[in-house]
Amino acid sequence: MVNRRRFLSGAALGGAATGFVAATAFPTPSIAQNVKRLRMQTTWPRNFPGLGTGANFLAETIRRLSDGAVEIEIFGAGEIVPAFETMDAVEAGTLDMGHSAPYYWKGKVPATEFIAGVPFGLTASEATSWMKFGGGQELADEAYAQMNCKFFLSGCTGTQMAGWYSKEMNSIDDYRGLRMRLPGLGGEVIAAAGAAVINLPAGEIGPAMASGTLDAADWISPYNDLAIGMHRSGWFYYYPGWQEPGPIMDNFINLDVWNSLTDSEKAMFETANAAANAHVYSEFLANNNAALAEMVNEHDVQLRRLSDDTLIHLAELSRGVLDDLANADPLSRRVYDSILKFRAQAMPWANIAESAVMQARALDYQFSEPSEG
Amino acid sequence: MVNRRRFLSGAALGGAATGFVAATAFPTPSIAQNVKRLRMQTTWPRNFPGLGTGANFLAETIRRLSDGAVEIEIFGAGEIVPAFETMDAVEAGTLDMGHSAPYYWKGKVPATEFIAGVPFGLTASEATSWMKFGGGQELADEAYAQMNCKFFLSGCTGTQMAGWYSKEMNSIDDYRGLRMRLPGLGGEVIAAAGAAVINLPAGEIGPAMASGTLDAADWISPYNDLAIGMHRSGWFYYYPGWQEPGPIMDNFINLDVWNSLTDSEKAMFETANAAANAHVYSEFLANNNAALAEMVNEHDVQLRRLSDDTLIHLAELSRGVLDDLANADPLSRRVYDSILKFRAQAMPWANIAESAVMQARALDYQFSEPSEG
Repeated sequence: MVNRRRFLSGAALGGAATGFVAATAFPTPSIAQNVKRLRMQTTWPRNFPGLGTGANFLAETIRRLSDGAVEIEIFGAGEIVPAFETMDAVEAGTLDMGHSAPYYWKGKVPATEFIAGVPFGLTASEATSWMKFGGGQELADEAYAQMNCKFFLSGCTGTQMAGWYSKEMNSIDDYRGLRMRLPGLGGEVIAAAGAAVINLPAGEIGPAMASGTLDAADWISPYNDLAIGMHRSGWFYYYPGWQEPGPIMDNFINLDVWNSLTDSEKAMFETANAAANAHVYSEFLANNNAALAEMVNEHDVQLRRLSDDTLIHLAELSRGVLDDLANADPLSRRVYDSILKFRAQAMPWANIAESAVMQARALDYQFSEPSEG
Repeated sequence: MVNRRRFLSGAALGGAATGFVAATAFPTPSIAQNVKRLRMQTTWPRNFPGLGTGANFLAETIRRLSDGAVEIEIFGAGEIVPAFETMDAVEAGTLDMGHSAPYYWKGKVPATEFIAGVPFGLTASEATSWMKFGGGQELADEAYAQMNCKFFLSGCTGTQMAGWYSKEMNSIDDYRGLRMRLPGLGGEVIAAAGAAVINLPAGEIGPAMASGTLDAADWISPYNDLAIGMHRSGWFYYYPGWQEPGPIMDNFINLDVWNSLTDSEKAMFETANAAANAHVYSEFLANNNAALAEMVNEHDVQLRRLSDDTLIHLAELSRGVLDDLANADPLSRRVYDSILKFRAQAMPWANIAESAVMQARALDYQFSEPSEG
């Protein structure tokens, strides 16, 4: 890592940096006093609820596991390079690591869109299982190796909302002409329904909603949507998140850096990412409902459900769009096939297990109340 | 640890052991060549699918994280002490660690039944979130401290089945007189419905089904039920697992051993358990459907769903049973209140998110098929 850094001139770094970087970020040697210092940029702001806090958890866990021998310095979006140039910087070695959503890198490796999550596809728990037991890790490693990176699943946000809309969405026809922020495969599907898809990083969504650049926008779910102020749009808030039943975040590490780690350090990255993945999902699950209640009760947000008819049209459009994208790229095809095979096992099981029990507990009966005090 | 072991005579250990223990297990010093050696007994057989493999994953992860400095030797049920005496052995320091289901310890600390999971309660993901963000970890630590142990969530098995029944279950009345293996709070509920509850460790369930000691038995879900041969009963296989929507496994560590660990070692146990928890759930999710298909297609297992009417009766019985148990024990009351508060947030969110999207993807439409070859 030290050698690699020698190629970076101060001028080159200054050009990419935004001025937010503390002066101490640059002169620090990457290895000093037997401490390995790695620099990670996220595609979201520092300390962003769920996402930035997930990155913090990852870094803190690796610091504790290594007894301080591996220190990860976190930079928010734009602090070293613009958000969507994070992968370029890690690929080139300007940064050691990144923390983002896989579909941001579809321009470099199309299969990352499938890795991020498929419309009408896997839930968070199923996506986590696919990574470990369904071949997902190996396929994602193959995709990220094309960008000179090692891949980790680093945070499921859980089922998302279907997004914010300036008008009611009564049928599939309402997508025609809709200018919507919706990255990933969901965006490809609504484009097939006639929408104009505009992708923006988190920090630019709110202003684009306010300025009229967008008619609709999807970000994540109430916990983070509240944090970036999407409820201030006055728009309708739709569910369910057909486009992202269980989307994932990635953590990627420059392959030269990865290969320089000991087996024990590699275990720290693997295990800390597995813990971070659960931590992020847990954080969203614990906070989404209160955030949604605040939106509805204090900010008069109108909650709406997409009709079954609209959902069925979106599913049928998804089929054509996903088949076409998969058939255009061999690695996308292999990733999609792997997901489809896992989905064919996961869906019938969900209907017996998680989905069936969630419907059972939602039946009409009186249940216990917490005691007073 | 060395001092503690000095109190153990060979005779005392020999009395508890079953003869399965390798000779090397006893003379090994607990710290040798700077390696900390810890002994863990599980309440299930070694390498048991999902459960024993989860224990193996935990031990292997800690070994890798510590670069071999912390070695956990695993013993299956009965290898050191009988399965249900595992906690006594860890509490006394005969063993360092255990791996089990919390409700096995209800005779020592009643609140462990609530910690294990509540009928009509939390799913695996929600239970994991409750532990971290809903106060569950702190309450479980308090409960296990009464048994001289530190608590870890170490494996969600996911929504269970409702169990195996020698007759069809058409109404709540069919529970009257039923001799059923069903531990935990679910067992308390069916007892209120008139069942006779008989608890047995995994290895004794199959023989009791075959001998006519039992009329019904719940173990976990198809992946492990197939492994212990429950399908050979010829009984009906019912879902959904109202009694255990997201039950958990524990890993507990003698508090003297826990307190002797460095902060970095403690981080290894915390992080490895978080990873093991996800690993176990992932393993069940990846394997349950194929196991169920094998049962149905190759062994003619008859799959049945409990009626909504039966489920509503069970929910209403649950209310009274759980309220009574909680009101009889202050810590149980606090645990149950904490779960109920989390549930009141989790259920409406599930209806917007995971449950809604699982129902959306189960709508009637044609979706992609994996490509040939």
